[in-house]
Amino acid sequence: MRIPLDPQAAPPLYRQLEAWFRDAIATGALPAGSRLPSSRALAADLGVSRVTVATAYAELESGGLVVAAVGSGTRVAPSLPTAVGSVARGGPAPADRPWPAWHGAAGAGTGDGGGAAGAGSARAGTGGARAGAVDAAGARPDVIAFTGVGDPAAYPVAEFGRTLRQVLAREGAAALSYGRDPAGDPSLRRTVTQLLASQGIGVPPESVIVTSGSQQALALVCQVLVRPGDTVLVEEPTYDLALRLLRAVGAHLVGVPVDADGLRVDALAERLERHRARLLYVVPNFQNPTGATLSGSRRRALLELARAHGVPVFEDDFAGDLRYSGRATPAVKSLDDGGHVLYAGTFSKLLMPGLRVGYLVADGPIGRRLVEAKQVTDLGTSMLLQRALDRFVTVGRYQANLRRAGRLYRERRDTLRAALAEHLPDAGFAPPAGGLFGWVALPTGVRSDALVRAARHRGVDVAPGSRFYLCPGDGAGHVRLNFAVQPPERIVAGVVRLAAAVDSLRSDPQA
Amino acid sequence: MRIPLDPQAAPPLYRQLEAWFRDAIATGALPAGSRLPSSRALAADLGVSRVTVATAYAELESGGLVVAAVGSGTRVAPSLPTAVGSVARGGPAPADRPWPAWHGAAGAGTGDGGGAAGAGSARAGTGGARAGAVDAAGARPDVIAFTGVGDPAAYPVAEFGRTLRQVLAREGAAALSYGRDPAGDPSLRRTVTQLLASQGIGVPPESVIVTSGSQQALALVCQVLVRPGDTVLVEEPTYDLALRLLRAVGAHLVGVPVDADGLRVDALAERLERHRARLLYVVPNFQNPTGATLSGSRRRALLELARAHGVPVFEDDFAGDLRYSGRATPAVKSLDDGGHVLYAGTFSKLLMPGLRVGYLVADGPIGRRLVEAKQVTDLGTSMLLQRALDRFVTVGRYQANLRRAGRLYRERRDTLRAALAEHLPDAGFAPPAGGLFGWVALPTGVRSDALVRAARHRGVDVAPGSRFYLCPGDGAGHVRLNFAVQPPERIVAGVVRLAAAVDSLRSDPQA
Repeated sequence: MRIPLDPQAAPPLYRQLEAWFRDAIATGALPAGSRLPSSRALAADLGVSRVTVATAYAELESGGLVVAAVGSGTRVAPSLPTAVGSVARGGPAPADRPWPAWHGAAGAGTGDGGGAAGAGSARAGTGGARAGAVDAAGARPDVIAFTGVGDPAAYPVAEFGRTLRQVLAREGAAALSYGRDPAGDPSLRRTVTQLLASQGIGVPPESVIVTSGSQQALALVCQVLVRPGDTVLVEEPTYDLALRLLRAVGAHLVGVPVDADGLRVDALAERLERHRARLLYVVPNFQNPTGATLSGSRRRALLELARAHGVPVFEDDFAGDLRYSGRATPAVKSLDDGGHVLYAGTFSKLLMPGLRVGYLVADGPIGRRLVEAKQVTDLGTSMLLQRALDRFVTVGRYQANLRRAGRLYRERRDTLRAALAEHLPDAGFAPPAGGLFGWVALPTGVRSDALVRAARHRGVDVAPGSRFYLCPGDGAGHVRLNFAVQPPERIVAGVVRLAAAVDSLRSDPQA
Repeated sequence: MRIPLDPQAAPPLYRQLEAWFRDAIATGALPAGSRLPSSRALAADLGVSRVTVATAYAELESGGLVVAAVGSGTRVAPSLPTAVGSVARGGPAPADRPWPAWHGAAGAGTGDGGGAAGAGSARAGTGGARAGAVDAAGARPDVIAFTGVGDPAAYPVAEFGRTLRQVLAREGAAALSYGRDPAGDPSLRRTVTQLLASQGIGVPPESVIVTSGSQQALALVCQVLVRPGDTVLVEEPTYDLALRLLRAVGAHLVGVPVDADGLRVDALAERLERHRARLLYVVPNFQNPTGATLSGSRRRALLELARAHGVPVFEDDFAGDLRYSGRATPAVKSLDDGGHVLYAGTFSKLLMPGLRVGYLVADGPIGRRLVEAKQVTDLGTSMLLQRALDRFVTVGRYQANLRRAGRLYRERRDTLRAALAEHLPDAGFAPPAGGLFGWVALPTGVRSDALVRAARHRGVDVAPGSRFYLCPGDGAGHVRLNFAVQPPERIVAGVVRLAAAVDSLRSDPQA
């Protein structure tokens, strides 16, 4: 043990040692029952006499903090006295402690002048880390959550477990080593290429970078292309965690409105004239949160604008192949033969979100810079997960999974539509052609933030529209429902609860 | 399939379809033997007539690219004709293609004026993504590599495989979901707390953030605290991938020299007076690359300087508990009761590097900002890996692994010392008290870059000293050897090869 002792300090060494153990026991760092090192071993480690250690242990024992038993050494007591606090370490108690200015405490303007501290304060205002955007679906069985990403019951747990076993059995330590290429396992990159080809996107494996989910793909693009103060264009509304990431890197965000056919390219053209944009972030398929799909002609117009203005397009295709109705619309990337589009996909939505493996497709010189960013950020995504996914994901199995999920989720979308029509007839809802998200326009006079609170009281979780707008005041007229998470009967029950919450707000507008 | 077809374009639709398949087959996106969709299904997907698809398939077949067989549909031919290229897509061939300016091609000054493009050019000069810093140890059996991180033979492959199986069997879909807290699985955070306590660092679980390796811990700290142009102080020499990360985020790097007792705090004091530093990056234990350990008195002095100047300390303790000789030195973090130190550790070095799981310890308000950065960067580290590690890592098992690795690597360090003394007696080598790295001072007149090349010819890989300095001209007198990767007999053989390479340079100084 590397316990810090200071021979120059006033308290004798045994007191310092005792104080350290008291603290460690009080904070839970040393839980009940954990074994302390033998006094001989600890004395040798620390270069102190054995008597010093034995004295400290005796003090702890007399205070009821540890128990010494012949043959099993000294252990933390199974139940502790109430006052365990430190005796000799000094310093203010944690709550009163003045933190260094660079911590940039939320809410407190640090006035420190540095760009980082300023950006930090801005970030602090965007909502805490537990803003609920990433809920574990079904974690509270009493609550019907229209949040999360997909139905855990559809995860191929047993199959994937077999694959992991095979990988470790056949590839051994290689699967637990660093990869040779920070862009990702070559075989998995070929597999991704084939998946993309099966969706109409033809790219070579060299253009594929394996990432820790598609969120990291956007983070890497930001690291390479966006500096604090740079303008980034986003659909409005758009995916909340993309907004939070872009804010965190200090981007100046400019919204482009979305209608039933997706991003309005006339508005995009106007924004591109007015701003020197560094990036355009779009979700062309089954957009998050509106569910809208960008029309084919707008895709071509968008690409032409990006080319003309020299602005990179980040295409987030988080669920582009999860289509329930309508025609297949080509990815913007598949129309791009000039390196204008960076394309991100993920295995999270169809297979298992907890794996955190996705991919970024980038042609041309920017690819090398993105690989460098990936390497310096985390040295590459876990080889074990990459090798397991590569074994697991065949085009056939992926397509089968897609069809199965498509059937399941289409039924749920239709259930949501029917339930809304029956129980909330004055809400507006245009069923999306695919994906996970339903965007519900609330009846006049019902505000989403109040509704979200009232709904939670009634045991149903939905996302407030404000979360997806640049200005939180917008979006008050909408809520987003992920219809893929819940089975049909719970969708109906959830909508009934939501309708009751709407009624409660109407009868008590002050709520 | 979402193949892009343009009804407005000149080539007829069947030609566009044919061209798309030609491209996809040529790039390998559709490999030999892959099945094309049935003409009916594809026609329905794309909203074209079945004749259009059948005509395209017939053209591909007559060109020898696909094979149609009754009952098994149309497949890519098992062997392809040589000229497969596109017929109708047009546009310049990839090699001649003018990439958009924002790609910031390496070597070409883009003159684009944006900060990002400028930083990109700078990055391009720091070495490609495959600079060899992260080699898969032992991938070329003919080469004795003193690079990589640890000995794959020591990875607990079978044991960890059993753990993974248990996690999937007992926790099912929960292990494949998003976590509820982007800071990490609560149970794993408690486990990390206990590990840290067993090393003398007492912190509560709330201060622990699970990261994708300790590299990501530094990346998150940069994201929150460092803006382009900010000054960051680093030991010189220091860990090459930390340098590359800090350069990638645009930091202005200032070196602080290292001697046998680690970072020179007198020089640190001088640098802090001269520069308004945003961060100090240090590796106090068994430093990478020098192997030096920061003395206890310097640790206290460093912490006092950081406090006085309000500069955060990033303590990279990648192998702090892997000690072979000497006294245990407390982590700087364990001396810090004011939130001045951000501490990073990892499971990579002792267990399995391919897992990519590490942790960042941060007290105070900065912790919340770092968790937000973690969430927006990748939504949290893979739950499956977190749950498996939590089950796998008990304090007892960790300590046993530590003792085993310590015995193994100490023997290797001593073997390296003896082999250098015998075969390269005029090289300088101070054996480190722990860790993985030996820093060898070359005989006068031998330059490390030339030696690394000559050594590679003779089948031994070492890292050139220049890689670890701010100015690549420095470090010419040193090479770094990771002695933990190779068994003793290969260490001796490697040193013999290295000595032969040194001799070859002496006999031919032009080499």
